[in-house]
Amino acid sequence: MENIAYYNGKTGPIEEMTVPMNDRACYFADGVYDAMMTRNHIPLSLDDHLARLYRSAKLIDIEVPMAYEALRALMMELCAKVDSPDAMAYVQVTRGVGMRSHPYSGAGEGGPSLWIFVKPDVLDDMDREYSCITLPDTRYLHCNIKTLNLLPAVLYTQKAVQAGCDEAILHRDGRVTECAHSNVHILKDGVFRTAPCDNLILPGITRAHRIAQCREMGIPVVEEAFTLEDLMDADEVIFTSASALCCRVTTIDGKRVGGKDFELFDRIRQAAKREIIEEAGE
Amino acid sequence: MENIAYYNGKTGPIEEMTVPMNDRACYFADGVYDAMMTRNHIPLSLDDHLARLYRSAKLIDIEVPMAYEALRALMMELCAKVDSPDAMAYVQVTRGVGMRSHPYSGAGEGGPSLWIFVKPDVLDDMDREYSCITLPDTRYLHCNIKTLNLLPAVLYTQKAVQAGCDEAILHRDGRVTECAHSNVHILKDGVFRTAPCDNLILPGITRAHRIAQCREMGIPVVEEAFTLEDLMDADEVIFTSASALCCRVTTIDGKRVGGKDFELFDRIRQAAKREIIEEAGE
Repeated sequence: MENIAYYNGKTGPIEEMTVPMNDRACYFADGVYDAMMTRNHIPLSLDDHLARLYRSAKLIDIEVPMAYEALRALMMELCAKVDSPDAMAYVQVTRGVGMRSHPYSGAGEGGPSLWIFVKPDVLDDMDREYSCITLPDTRYLHCNIKTLNLLPAVLYTQKAVQAGCDEAILHRDGRVTECAHSNVHILKDGVFRTAPCDNLILPGITRAHRIAQCREMGIPVVEEAFTLEDLMDADEVIFTSASALCCRVTTIDGKRVGGKDFELFDRIRQAAKREIIEEAGE
Repeated sequence: MENIAYYNGKTGPIEEMTVPMNDRACYFADGVYDAMMTRNHIPLSLDDHLARLYRSAKLIDIEVPMAYEALRALMMELCAKVDSPDAMAYVQVTRGVGMRSHPYSGAGEGGPSLWIFVKPDVLDDMDREYSCITLPDTRYLHCNIKTLNLLPAVLYTQKAVQAGCDEAILHRDGRVTECAHSNVHILKDGVFRTAPCDNLILPGITRAHRIAQCREMGIPVVEEAFTLEDLMDADEVIFTSASALCCRVTTIDGKRVGGKDFELFDRIRQAAKREIIEEAGE
């Protein structure tokens, strides 16, 4: 089939799937999610993404309503059912269904809800150059948890699109945090620099993979806050996400950036490409 | 009927109402809402709440998919249909239905979605004493817009409930902002003090009504930031919301607070009661 949606045991085409109005996703964004890409119907870094989903859920006191192995098997099964070998697999857990009320002690008597969909999608092109805007990071202080409270990310991305750009790089008073839906890193003097994993950024899975590969290749990694000035002055600027495995930024706010250490960028990019080829059995 | 839900022209009991999984409420909390209480089937301060709904929607670039007078009439009609004369009337506008994607240029081709429900509910008792906890305010910097990004409010309220309390009073580095789902005010030396309307608090409709009545009664009002110290040292502490018209707080974090100017509190409370009696035609 072209795509598939799952909600608490029910399946169907995404466009026809309905959910109860009283699911706490609808009123409170009371849930967490994760998303990954598939190649050859294989969800990439599935275990990393599921582990993060369980961790996110725990951080907001929600129990994922399916055991790990069963959820893993279900994700694989749904990815196999979609015609396109290249797709996005999305999984979401919300606190459940119940009359709208802020506290959740008595909410969701049926337990948390499990939402999944798989739809055709492709990885971002790692061979092109990307452009970004910068914006003040006005989000809450729980950015380490992958929750549904995504309106700021929607508005930032829309601004980037309206500016003819691909992503928005966020900063708090000049300290670069991450992008609207990616992590951002710089190369400087041969070092891979990226913001530390605190409550201001999502601990990106692709970020972790790039860091691990840099270390394997002997490229020094520094996980410390850097500034907008560092960003504009970097040898190269890279953003990463589940769909952007290693994307090079060459324009920020209309100014040319990076372009001073393509060789190092390319080593990291080639490693990213190799990893996917191996995982997807190509 | 006991309660009623409305979604884009479809109506039914809340518990049976379903919505498309792809409504952007479900993935992005991409919408705004408002809520009011009814007495004798009359939605209290309906025009204030609807005006705020249109304002909130505009602030995140969503057009409410119904003209003001038609929406007003629909709210009245739905409130009249519910058996209970005392109810909560809730209205929500989301960016619409479409395949999950952060930017919204091409999203929601059917236009924004309109959600409404009315369910039995009563105003908070203005004659009892309330207890609160204090918590750091970790929310985003758009608290002036009534959006669906409410997970922090859910978690704060749950903490209050678990502590056996009624509300959580929030502060940013000691500066009191508001509560999880109410505004908070203090009386000190005969003055009604409350945080100013900036991006850190919701411009409460009940807050505005209390301020207007204070001014009519000659009670000085100061809209300036106050601290946790001011709060604990206040003559009286009051929280207000659509359901809490004028509620007196006597315990914060387990300590007795206020209780030093009951007479002034009671003047403000009696004015709140009179206003409701007039509006509900009692």
